[in-house]
Amino acid sequence: LTALLAARQSRAGFDLWSQGQSAGEDLCVLVSEQAHYCVARAVRIMGWGDQGLFKVPVDDRNRLDPAALPDVLAQARAAGRRPIGVVGSACTTATGSYDPLDAIADFCETNDLWFHVDAAHGGSVVLSPKYRALAAGLERADSVVWDCHKMMMMPGVLTAVLFRDGRRSYETFRQEATYLFEERPDEEWYNPGNRTVECTRPGAAVLLYTALRVHGVGVFRDYVTRCFDVARRLAEIIHGAPEFELYMEPDANIVCFRFRREGPAGDGLHERVRGNILRSGQYYLTSVHLDDKNWLRCTLQNPFTDEAELQGLLETIRAEVRAAEETGAS
Amino acid sequence: LTALLAARQSRAGFDLWSQGQSAGEDLCVLVSEQAHYCVARAVRIMGWGDQGLFKVPVDDRNRLDPAALPDVLAQARAAGRRPIGVVGSACTTATGSYDPLDAIADFCETNDLWFHVDAAHGGSVVLSPKYRALAAGLERADSVVWDCHKMMMMPGVLTAVLFRDGRRSYETFRQEATYLFEERPDEEWYNPGNRTVECTRPGAAVLLYTALRVHGVGVFRDYVTRCFDVARRLAEIIHGAPEFELYMEPDANIVCFRFRREGPAGDGLHERVRGNILRSGQYYLTSVHLDDKNWLRCTLQNPFTDEAELQGLLETIRAEVRAAEETGAS
Repeated sequence: LTALLAARQSRAGFDLWSQGQSAGEDLCVLVSEQAHYCVARAVRIMGWGDQGLFKVPVDDRNRLDPAALPDVLAQARAAGRRPIGVVGSACTTATGSYDPLDAIADFCETNDLWFHVDAAHGGSVVLSPKYRALAAGLERADSVVWDCHKMMMMPGVLTAVLFRDGRRSYETFRQEATYLFEERPDEEWYNPGNRTVECTRPGAAVLLYTALRVHGVGVFRDYVTRCFDVARRLAEIIHGAPEFELYMEPDANIVCFRFRREGPAGDGLHERVRGNILRSGQYYLTSVHLDDKNWLRCTLQNPFTDEAELQGLLETIRAEVRAAEETGAS
Repeated sequence: LTALLAARQSRAGFDLWSQGQSAGEDLCVLVSEQAHYCVARAVRIMGWGDQGLFKVPVDDRNRLDPAALPDVLAQARAAGRRPIGVVGSACTTATGSYDPLDAIADFCETNDLWFHVDAAHGGSVVLSPKYRALAAGLERADSVVWDCHKMMMMPGVLTAVLFRDGRRSYETFRQEATYLFEERPDEEWYNPGNRTVECTRPGAAVLLYTALRVHGVGVFRDYVTRCFDVARRLAEIIHGAPEFELYMEPDANIVCFRFRREGPAGDGLHERVRGNILRSGQYYLTSVHLDDKNWLRCTLQNPFTDEAELQGLLETIRAEVRAAEETGAS
């Protein structure tokens, strides 16, 4: 929301913060149909409604298809909206897919659009030399959101909004409150009240700074690399097990797969099996609906997860499926 | 912001969340000219601009003047805006004034407006039998914001948004994300992602629940009463010291006062004195600009503050003023 407010103020073409939306054209942003729901939420908070967000198709790995951007831009304009930016994901929450950020950056440059990247989950990949290329182009974004409670082992909530041009962050929330804000702008860098939605906030950055000082960057580099490696290993194991189906080769440390059972009965089976496993407390699985099927979604985020645990997870699912099907048959 | 989004969805007269602001009339809220800047911020985030907020005059104790409400309502309508609600303060941040909530509730009932109360600082007063009457009418609000890190001795940030009708809280952020939200609405009460701006949040309510279970309500009742008592005692002392001027008899535990020096030089003097005291670390004073003058603003929030400390504060200010004026003269 903070980044989109900055984009709105920067690219609306009028002083929307003071004059209000009705003083100018209706705005919108372009975003992959697989983006996190928070983008749609921010758009609706700002009062843009359904038409505030135009969805860009994805390829077979759930990455935004940059070739579709000109068409969607034209659609948005035809609908009477002025597009102000594109939101890329690095990576998407559902399947861990990295959008082609360099191609999106090119498109934004050509069309004078704000380029925001939701790198909440996957931004930490830049610390891993092995996987860094997945987020190539991230450095060209106008704004980036990065959650340190996701892949930096920090306690929640520790989210950063990074701006390429720091001054933009001041334009977003211009306000006066004599008991809070000083008059000298050059001394205002330390006052988060001018740059964030909330005024009172815990000094979360201290946690991250402390961890980096104490442990160094290496620990986090190895952690990211290890989690992504483990996800690829799980995908390999699933490939070797014919009773399981992999949704796609994982980009990040998120793996979506299912036990091969077709139709709505198969979906119900998945939900029953997942519920039993959650109640047992042995593994944590979420579920996601993709291509008209329910998939089990596994986020490999514990660096101590080993081969035995991956095999154990699949064995547990097999056992639960057998038990569920026997109960259903009797 | 959360409460105003609920008010917006409830009273806009159309489905603004889905259709966007441009599908209906421009909206606004009515709020005292002394309200916290976060109301104006929320209005601007929603894209309503300057005209999204119509200011209601205050009386000589900075309380919203309910007699002025019909006029301001008419002004807003004349400006082409549809007013959807009134925001009351209990208390205001600058001077700790409690708006006449009962009178505002009457007005909202008559005119079918959402009644929101910013009780961030002063809501805890309901725990104090001695001072509870200050917030009479709070129980009639459609929504209330209450910060437990202010007058409940909780660590920041611990903010609650309370709704009179809990169902409203679900209408605010209707969305789908299959990997997060279950399909059965009756099991959704525990899922804050449906009802708050952020999705991932620490379970802050546990802190408050634990403190109430361990200490009981009595501790907090005595705490609030004590802090309000101390503020009244500071005001008395200032009345007895002719070199000081009190802005107004305190409602809450916020006391605004100044050393009697007129003109811009006096304002500069106050800022120099305040800076020196802050740097010494002895007392924490903020400043506030009211009626064209700078005032020192003291929030009495430590239950161990005693008579000697209040006297010490004034003595320290006297000494700093003397020192500053001698330096200035030499």
